Amino acid sequence: MKALRYENQKLSVTDVPEPRVDGEAVVRVTLSGICNTDLEIARGYAGFAGTIGHEFVGVIESVPLNEALARPIGRAQSNEPLLTRGLVPGDRVVGEINAGCGRCDLCRAGDSRHCATRTVLGIVGRDGAHAEFLKLPVVNLLPVPDEISDERAVFTEPLAAACGILERAQITVRTRPAVIGDGKLGLLCAQVLATTGAPVVLVGKHEGKLQIAARRGIETMTVNETQSRAKTFDVVVEASGSAAGFALALDLLRPRGVLVLKSTFHGPTEMDAARIVVDEISVVGSRCGRFAPALELLKTGAVDVESLISEELRLTEGLRAMKRAAEPGVLKVLLRP
Amino acid sequence: MKALRYENQKLSVTDVPEPRVDGEAVVRVTLSGICNTDLEIARGYAGFAGTIGHEFVGVIESVPLNEALARPIGRAQSNEPLLTRGLVPGDRVVGEINAGCGRCDLCRAGDSRHCATRTVLGIVGRDGAHAEFLKLPVVNLLPVPDEISDERAVFTEPLAAACGILERAQITVRTRPAVIGDGKLGLLCAQVLATTGAPVVLVGKHEGKLQIAARRGIETMTVNETQSRAKTFDVVVEASGSAAGFALALDLLRPRGVLVLKSTFHGPTEMDAARIVVDEISVVGSRCGRFAPALELLKTGAVDVESLISEELRLTEGLRAMKRAAEPGVLKVLLRP
Repeated sequence: MKALRYENQKLSVTDVPEPRVDGEAVVRVTLSGICNTDLEIARGYAGFAGTIGHEFVGVIESVPLNEALARPIGRAQSNEPLLTRGLVPGDRVVGEINAGCGRCDLCRAGDSRHCATRTVLGIVGRDGAHAEFLKLPVVNLLPVPDEISDERAVFTEPLAAACGILERAQITVRTRPAVIGDGKLGLLCAQVLATTGAPVVLVGKHEGKLQIAARRGIETMTVNETQSRAKTFDVVVEASGSAAGFALALDLLRPRGVLVLKSTFHGPTEMDAARIVVDEISVVGSRCGRFAPALELLKTGAVDVESLISEELRLTEGLRAMKRAAEPGVLKVLLRP
Repeated sequence: MKALRYENQKLSVTDVPEPRVDGEAVVRVTLSGICNTDLEIARGYAGFAGTIGHEFVGVIESVPLNEALARPIGRAQSNEPLLTRGLVPGDRVVGEINAGCGRCDLCRAGDSRHCATRTVLGIVGRDGAHAEFLKLPVVNLLPVPDEISDERAVFTEPLAAACGILERAQITVRTRPAVIGDGKLGLLCAQVLATTGAPVVLVGKHEGKLQIAARRGIETMTVNETQSRAKTFDVVVEASGSAAGFALALDLLRPRGVLVLKSTFHGPTEMDAARIVVDEISVVGSRCGRFAPALELLKTGAVDVESLISEELRLTEGLRAMKRAAEPGVLKVLLRP
């Protein structure tokens, strides 16, 4: 099968053997999405070699026999009954990207996101999603409700990551949050925070991108326009991935405010630690979120993801797609095997 | 009166007028303590000019007439009745160092530590404690119980700062905390955390300093000895003030652990932001604490502060005292006017 791989410091679309059923499910990928993490891996920043990509929607090709039994597969909403139908070939699915050992305390508590020996789809020790097929433990897969098109479902992973903010910072209708960065991550974060009813402000540089949030009723402003709002926000999400964004976040936070670090930074980042101490700021890292809340947001249409699609290319055009995704102004680039 | 002042990029002991009663209390300083912040101010890092020093014990010289009324002055312990005797000349006192506007929401809620227009004794816009007399609002002063000697009471401010950690991170008998740095701040932090019953580990470099904590039953180790404890601590307090200490703290924390930044860093500090995101660490700044819990610890003898005293000098020897305080291996240097 074709796969977009980073090996020997080189990115290429190459032929590799299809994954075999060996205790995990095999999924035929329908669509995959290029994330900034993919671009960083392809720059050699992450020490990963193999098939890249971790955002996907697909159809189950096969599941191991012993997994084809009724088992909990999560709740669509906290007040809905636990879904227990086993997944079978033909089911349309998305998949959580952290595959845990299954034996440590964290995994047994149902959350393998911090399992010390986890592999991560297309990021750590596990071939990823920019391919015709991928493998994941069945327990990682969630069925996609019929209401959600493939073009929306492929956003489940980044949207879940945005939802993960709500696990790390308390945000209610009375919280004053800001999001820094109008890239695809910032646009998802701002929309997720807005679902709480809080008066979210998105800070960015690009009129066209800010418009996507403004159309959802989110207040937007440029960096210059934030000056009158210094020290007024309770929570600021840094989603620009730049040291300047980090510094701006400190400027915008009230004393004892919470700075959510959402972007993956690479290499050392300079911070004004004195500010963190004097204003008693909390800097809170946030990585992956759970998929169920994201699927719920996609089902109800509470978040606009279609506007984030810049282009769709064939998997065989993977190199061109990666270049395109790195261009200024481009949001999500999708790959179709 | 004599005062140790930093002015025109120069430190000196000079004669200045005694403070006048003008709505605040005047305190005759009995003892003051030299803090690392004083050293940093004297290096020109903090933009402060005036009398330095913010750790003191003293005797009230005068209070404004309208303040000499019964008023709440805090509780020695949460289960004790509110103390309401007014402070009068002759009372032995310590003083919280942040003087708020008295009008903003924070001040009206009784906590001026983050008042936007606050002055801070010997640090921001207000002459400090290395002098024969100082001024503070009466509301900042707390009476010192008879059981606490001057040599112990002068540690109230730094001990309160250590107690402030407990406002910013939940620590119970089941928490695994570490403190990095065996200077005076680290030694106070480790002892305060140990009062919770948690199995505190103090990480340091100096056998003699580590011994002070070990005598109180606190486990101590060198940086090399921490290697087997990587990713096992729930809370790590950075009290070394070095970028290396910050990096070590990240190494020691479990995923979703809490790094308490207690030291005042100056200038940009490099951090591995990727680690904060991937392991979802919380970096929590901590500055000043309340005095009442610190006085309680001093009263019961739960914390050894005497062992931290390296030397006591006369205020007139202030320059020599500041040099001494900056020498390696020296802990607290006290000044007596």
